[in-house]
Amino acid sequence: MSSHDSILRVGMVGYAFMGAAHSQAWRTVNRVFDLPAKVRMSLVCGRDEPKVAEAADRLGWDGYTTDWRRLVESDEIDVVDICTPGDSHGEIALAALAAGKHVLCEKPLANTVAEAREMTAAAARARESGVRTMCGFNYRRVPAVALMRQLVAEGRLGEIRHVRAAYLQDWIVDPQFPLVWRLQKDRAGSGALGDIGAHIIDLTQYVTGQSISGVSALTETFVRQRPLPAGSSGLAAQAGGNGRGTGEVTVDDAAVFVARLDGGGLATYEATRFATGRKNALRVEINGSRGSVVFDLERLNELEFLDATRPAAEQGFSRILVTEPEHPYLDAWWPPGHIIGYEHSFTHQMRDFVEAVATGTDPRPSFADALQVQLVLDAVAQSAARSAWVEVEKEGAPVNASGRGGGPA
Amino acid sequence: MSSHDSILRVGMVGYAFMGAAHSQAWRTVNRVFDLPAKVRMSLVCGRDEPKVAEAADRLGWDGYTTDWRRLVESDEIDVVDICTPGDSHGEIALAALAAGKHVLCEKPLANTVAEAREMTAAAARARESGVRTMCGFNYRRVPAVALMRQLVAEGRLGEIRHVRAAYLQDWIVDPQFPLVWRLQKDRAGSGALGDIGAHIIDLTQYVTGQSISGVSALTETFVRQRPLPAGSSGLAAQAGGNGRGTGEVTVDDAAVFVARLDGGGLATYEATRFATGRKNALRVEINGSRGSVVFDLERLNELEFLDATRPAAEQGFSRILVTEPEHPYLDAWWPPGHIIGYEHSFTHQMRDFVEAVATGTDPRPSFADALQVQLVLDAVAQSAARSAWVEVEKEGAPVNASGRGGGPA
Amino acid sequence: MSSHDSILRVGMVGYAFMGAAHSQAWRTVNRVFDLPAKVRMSLVCGRDEPKVAEAADRLGWDGYTTDWRRLVESDEIDVVDICTPGDSHGEIALAALAAGKHVLCEKPLANTVAEAREMTAAAARARESGVRTMCGFNYRRVPAVALMRQLVAEGRLGEIRHVRAAYLQDWIVDPQFPLVWRLQKDRAGSGALGDIGAHIIDLTQYVTGQSISGVSALTETFVRQRPLPAGSSGLAAQAGGNGRGTGEVTVDDAAVFVARLDGGGLATYEATRFATGRKNALRVEINGSRGSVVFDLERLNELEFLDATRPAAEQGFSRILVTEPEHPYLDAWWPPGHIIGYEHSFTHQMRDFVEAVATGTDPRPSFADALQVQLVLDAVAQSAARSAWVEVEKEGAPVNASGRGGGPA
Amino acid sequence: MSSHDSILRVGMVGYAFMGAAHSQAWRTVNRVFDLPAKVRMSLVCGRDEPKVAEAADRLGWDGYTTDWRRLVESDEIDVVDICTPGDSHGEIALAALAAGKHVLCEKPLANTVAEAREMTAAAARARESGVRTMCGFNYRRVPAVALMRQLVAEGRLGEIRHVRAAYLQDWIVDPQFPLVWRLQKDRAGSGALGDIGAHIIDLTQYVTGQSISGVSALTETFVRQRPLPAGSSGLAAQAGGNGRGTGEVTVDDAAVFVARLDGGGLATYEATRFATGRKNALRVEINGSRGSVVFDLERLNELEFLDATRPAAEQGFSRILVTEPEHPYLDAWWPPGHIIGYEHSFTHQMRDFVEAVATGTDPRPSFADALQVQLVLDAVAQSAARSAWVEVEKEGAPVNASGRGGGPA
Repeated sequence: MSSHDSILRVGMVGYAFMGAAHSQAWRTVNRVFDLPAKVRMSLVCGRDEPKVAEAADRLGWDGYTTDWRRLVESDEIDVVDICTPGDSHGEIALAALAAGKHVLCEKPLANTVAEAREMTAAAARARESGVRTMCGFNYRRVPAVALMRQLVAEGRLGEIRHVRAAYLQDWIVDPQFPLVWRLQKDRAGSGALGDIGAHIIDLTQYVTGQSISGVSALTETFVRQRPLPAGSSGLAAQAGGNGRGTGEVTVDDAAVFVARLDGGGLATYEATRFATGRKNALRVEINGSRGSVVFDLERLNELEFLDATRPAAEQGFSRILVTEPEHPYLDAWWPPGHIIGYEHSFTHQMRDFVEAVATGTDPRPSFADALQVQLVLDAVAQSAARSAWVEVEKEGAPVNASGRGGGPA
Repeated sequence: MSSHDSILRVGMVGYAFMGAAHSQAWRTVNRVFDLPAKVRMSLVCGRDEPKVAEAADRLGWDGYTTDWRRLVESDEIDVVDICTPGDSHGEIALAALAAGKHVLCEKPLANTVAEAREMTAAAARARESGVRTMCGFNYRRVPAVALMRQLVAEGRLGEIRHVRAAYLQDWIVDPQFPLVWRLQKDRAGSGALGDIGAHIIDLTQYVTGQSISGVSALTETFVRQRPLPAGSSGLAAQAGGNGRGTGEVTVDDAAVFVARLDGGGLATYEATRFATGRKNALRVEINGSRGSVVFDLERLNELEFLDATRPAAEQGFSRILVTEPEHPYLDAWWPPGHIIGYEHSFTHQMRDFVEAVATGTDPRPSFADALQVQLVLDAVAQSAARSAWVEVEKEGAPVNASGRGGGPA
Repeated sequence: MSSHDSILRVGMVGYAFMGAAHSQAWRTVNRVFDLPAKVRMSLVCGRDEPKVAEAADRLGWDGYTTDWRRLVESDEIDVVDICTPGDSHGEIALAALAAGKHVLCEKPLANTVAEAREMTAAAARARESGVRTMCGFNYRRVPAVALMRQLVAEGRLGEIRHVRAAYLQDWIVDPQFPLVWRLQKDRAGSGALGDIGAHIIDLTQYVTGQSISGVSALTETFVRQRPLPAGSSGLAAQAGGNGRGTGEVTVDDAAVFVARLDGGGLATYEATRFATGRKNALRVEINGSRGSVVFDLERLNELEFLDATRPAAEQGFSRILVTEPEHPYLDAWWPPGHIIGYEHSFTHQMRDFVEAVATGTDPRPSFADALQVQLVLDAVAQSAARSAWVEVEKEGAPVNASGRGGGPA
Repeated sequence: MSSHDSILRVGMVGYAFMGAAHSQAWRTVNRVFDLPAKVRMSLVCGRDEPKVAEAADRLGWDGYTTDWRRLVESDEIDVVDICTPGDSHGEIALAALAAGKHVLCEKPLANTVAEAREMTAAAARARESGVRTMCGFNYRRVPAVALMRQLVAEGRLGEIRHVRAAYLQDWIVDPQFPLVWRLQKDRAGSGALGDIGAHIIDLTQYVTGQSISGVSALTETFVRQRPLPAGSSGLAAQAGGNGRGTGEVTVDDAAVFVARLDGGGLATYEATRFATGRKNALRVEINGSRGSVVFDLERLNELEFLDATRPAAEQGFSRILVTEPEHPYLDAWWPPGHIIGYEHSFTHQMRDFVEAVATGTDPRPSFADALQVQLVLDAVAQSAARSAWVEVEKEGAPVNASGRGGGPA
């Protein structure tokens, strides 16, 4: 690698919601964690020059550009961080890998399986020159999620019988909410399914160390016409359009499916933007033969754990406040009970990514891991389209030989 | 009807778990509610004479018999209450109806659609002579459930977008738990699906006033061989068998399915006896365009309600303690905050049944309502067997013209 | 004793809220528990003949009287159950003891220490003839409370450092709520302090096995004039008076105090009828050197327990659903997860009382236990009146030699 | 003021727990909020040169010094941020004010009332030259706390009847935890009382807009001898000493008190480091005549609000997820439901401080506000020492003419 005196010079493409979250993480990671390399926030890229200039100043980047090709090819950049909508992930990542840059790409890896496969192949080739790649399923780095993973890996849950996963939001319940890019298939690939369904697919496969083998799904678009947006903004767009009429919503508002895990368990999944009152409720419950765990992203500092080997009269779900120095990532933060927030998952992601790049190891989730999520998403979409049970396609090599790893060392 | 000076003489068949719960309710109903008829606990029936004699004495029945035919044909009986396993519901109910008795039958109505259909037809014929029939989906009578129903009926949730229902138990996680009748298809019809899945199907259709139109399901039997039981007991059998070997579990341990409601919403359902740590967790969340509700049977005195028409800064799920005199059934009980329990749902059921019989109106859920639940169960079983989407069969007449009613007056 | 072939013939004085709760318990106790004696609900007493006649019929008593002296002296009565306001407890109990009846007296034992002392002395004398006495602190019989007591007794909490107890209600927040007897000092003795404060004093002393040694208190009456009530009813009176003007509230609306336990711990107590939104929130948290417990009467089927000897990464408050057969009283009820309610605490109280009377042992809490609670209440009232620290007076003998016992065998 | 082209050059004294939290906030504040001045992290001061050099590098300060007098007198510094133990607050603040620097001083303002009074007087004099002062009660800036304040100020709670406040920690339950500076009276002033009790006193007075007028208190030191620490570190010291024997704990482990508010309400307060299992549980409940609020710092993104003007059948405590753009401070952060953490309270504090300094207004809480908290702490200590009711001393001018303000504009 070209880590110039253990400095990693980062170039980030995109500066909206994800870009802001990544910036906060890049800025913080060396202040909190003791790492073998220091991050320099070198360059940020966006299409609108005044806006990207303002963003560079506000978010703390040394410079900006409006040409992502200039960024990925620059000699002054070691890492390319891709925070754009899914339709441009492939093109940017392939160019960055061709230029020998390490790549951190937001999820979902791509809008199609074909693209994801191409990116995964390119990553495998680049790896031979020491180039590292990672997909940004940041919730793996929530300490309570990493703790769930540990408990499962240690056998504390026994055999996994049930996964119950839902990612519930409500930001488009109002039919006057405009037709932002996330509601357009050509930009976003899919709706709730790829945006938030991808998270619970990855998270539950990561935690259980198992893969989804087949699915039966339903999807629905409850509001099919929406006002055209005044600008091009994303999640934060205000209700009400630009007065120039309406357009068609071309993605799913909600997706639900039942699934089998390759370990024999049954699972239910739900991703929706129409769960009125649920703002960012990623909820997972896993039941095993020896215990159970429950997690809710709206209370991300907590994990409920039931140990069925305890005496019957004392058994119950324990609310573990995951803020102890014994918990993943937490020894670097505040004293016990002083909680952390959403953005910390990105700081932890950057910690693991920087460490992997600096020490020449492969960060997880890999592009191959992300491709497998894409295959599940594809099976869900096919199942919904055909009202049929669909087996998840398998890639040649076992994606997760060591059981879907990727947490803190 | 033959209500002999407003006395209803009840004969109950079966005296195990359900029989004990019904007895407590029959004994209590006139002590708490002011009703147009008085209940007399006349006769209880069971096959084992010493045991039924003991039960009659303990549970407070005036007499007992070992012959259910004698009971249903007795001139001293006005109401037959059927608390046996599902395989005998049909025969007893048909005989009771033929003898002109009002019938309260435990759920599920029958083990097969054919039987349920026959019972429903018999009920319709008997109704012409003023005979009343009802199926015992007692959870409709939990005050918080009745309150949910009211909120939906008043339009407080708007259009229903999502139903998320699970009935989670864990009493057979231990592979040494014996092969009791509830694990045998010939006795129980099905496993978790019919036993507890039936409850969430009925409850959610009742609350939403909508029917499930189609399903896609998976079922699983995690433990396929179990020790033979020492006795013939049911739910309460102790772990460990009789030393005479093992037998095959012929029902599902768990069933999961996605469904469409006829109003356009998406739903997920799960019924399992393998949710380690969940004892009796019937959980329902319903999201509508104007609000949401959440219920958990383990905290049955509470209902969470989110009213999305409130100002954004104040919105949240309100934990309503459903113990106010303004709440269904509660004006007859204790002061606010003094909670009630599981058994009270039966007392409320008896209240509604007695009132309907005494006033000559039709109690709900009717046998027709229960048949429709059976049709859903059948669709689920078929879907699981064929790995396919299955539409729920419709009976001729609209079962719930007035929208699946049946709560307190 | 005169238990006529193991029949206990009960006479109850008072038939309002407490009378209804006791009736439900007397009616149920032999149906659920296997006991060495059977209860007969013989006689109920009230001053208003039509009302007591109606109550006797509705609540299931064999007969009624308007003369409590006739009841306590009747040869047809073995047990006198006192459910009247506190100002008549002493007179009735003394007469019942003089007539050789076993006495169950509602809490608080009396309105004054002097009266409580006289009753305790009479109980001690009557005991020599085999007469049993008990005070009705029913919350000791909530299974989760009994479980707390067990955990403390087994040393699972270690040394007790903190007790944090509050009993919060809100039924008189409305200044138009009328001046019912519970707001009159001559009838009720005190307000929130004696009515609900007595419960948390008894409960925390019972659970910890320690006594309160001194207190510093504040009391307040927020609404000092209220409409006169239309009738004489109690808790359930409707807001709004009789139009005949207002009267003075002569009791406390709220009492708060800090206390020392004789084992060295610090405690805070609060009893109030002005905690808007809290209906019957008796909340207790106890912290010891090895663990902690938390209880809330509005969720009386649950106990939170933290075991500080568990590994740090797994510690958390476990929500124990106290419905297992391993839990106190629960093997007689429903399967796990099927919750019980407020009234069950009375059924359990009757179970323990009947068992003690039938086996010739002393039930707890004794009148002496209740006198000690009265001494604490008196210290609180004095402290509030004098704005001073007040030591709790001690009676001669150690009240709780074996550490404040009294739970299920 | 000397704001050199809208740059605020900050010098921070102390770099341990509080120093790290403040650094994170100074680093972040301009990245998230749009403010009239930019912060420069100029200089950090500590006594141990290698350590402060390392801290400067890690935390992102331009330079360091071991001489705080050099820092406060430097021409290159506009703001002095005091993060040292309480015994040095006075000396540093007085010197900084004498040098014309704006001062942000951690709480408690001082270890004694006399010192706090001297600092307040100096702040009043410096204010005439445009110098701004503020005390760091950061929890006022938790959005849910600011929202509570708003609700009370808008009259949504009506008249305040009860405050129930506890700050519960457990970090010294282990008797082998060493004698760190926070357990020494000469360094820390007091124990749990001043460290965490100060927070709940300030927070509840701020939220209610009322002052505590008198108190009755108990304090206790449960473990009176502890091992001497190996180093000089604070909160984070490991259990186990340096082998050189033990020393005396000279502060309180716990303090409990009842209080009257000057608006007529009753309050209970508890601050303890011995609440086993409670890590950082600052809990507040406030009951008013029209509503109630509940807050818990371990779930700082949530506020429970009960509006007693809603229909009885719908009333309940609403769990408001305080992450909406309508909520205080939140429009600058992530989309709804994406929670923030403990450290954000400091970022918000810096936001308000920077804005006040840049616009020439007085930030709150002022030194006068903090002095009043000191007077309450003093009354508590006196009450505990004398076992007596103690009135809180009043300073001449009304400290909070406009009702204890200080939230977001």
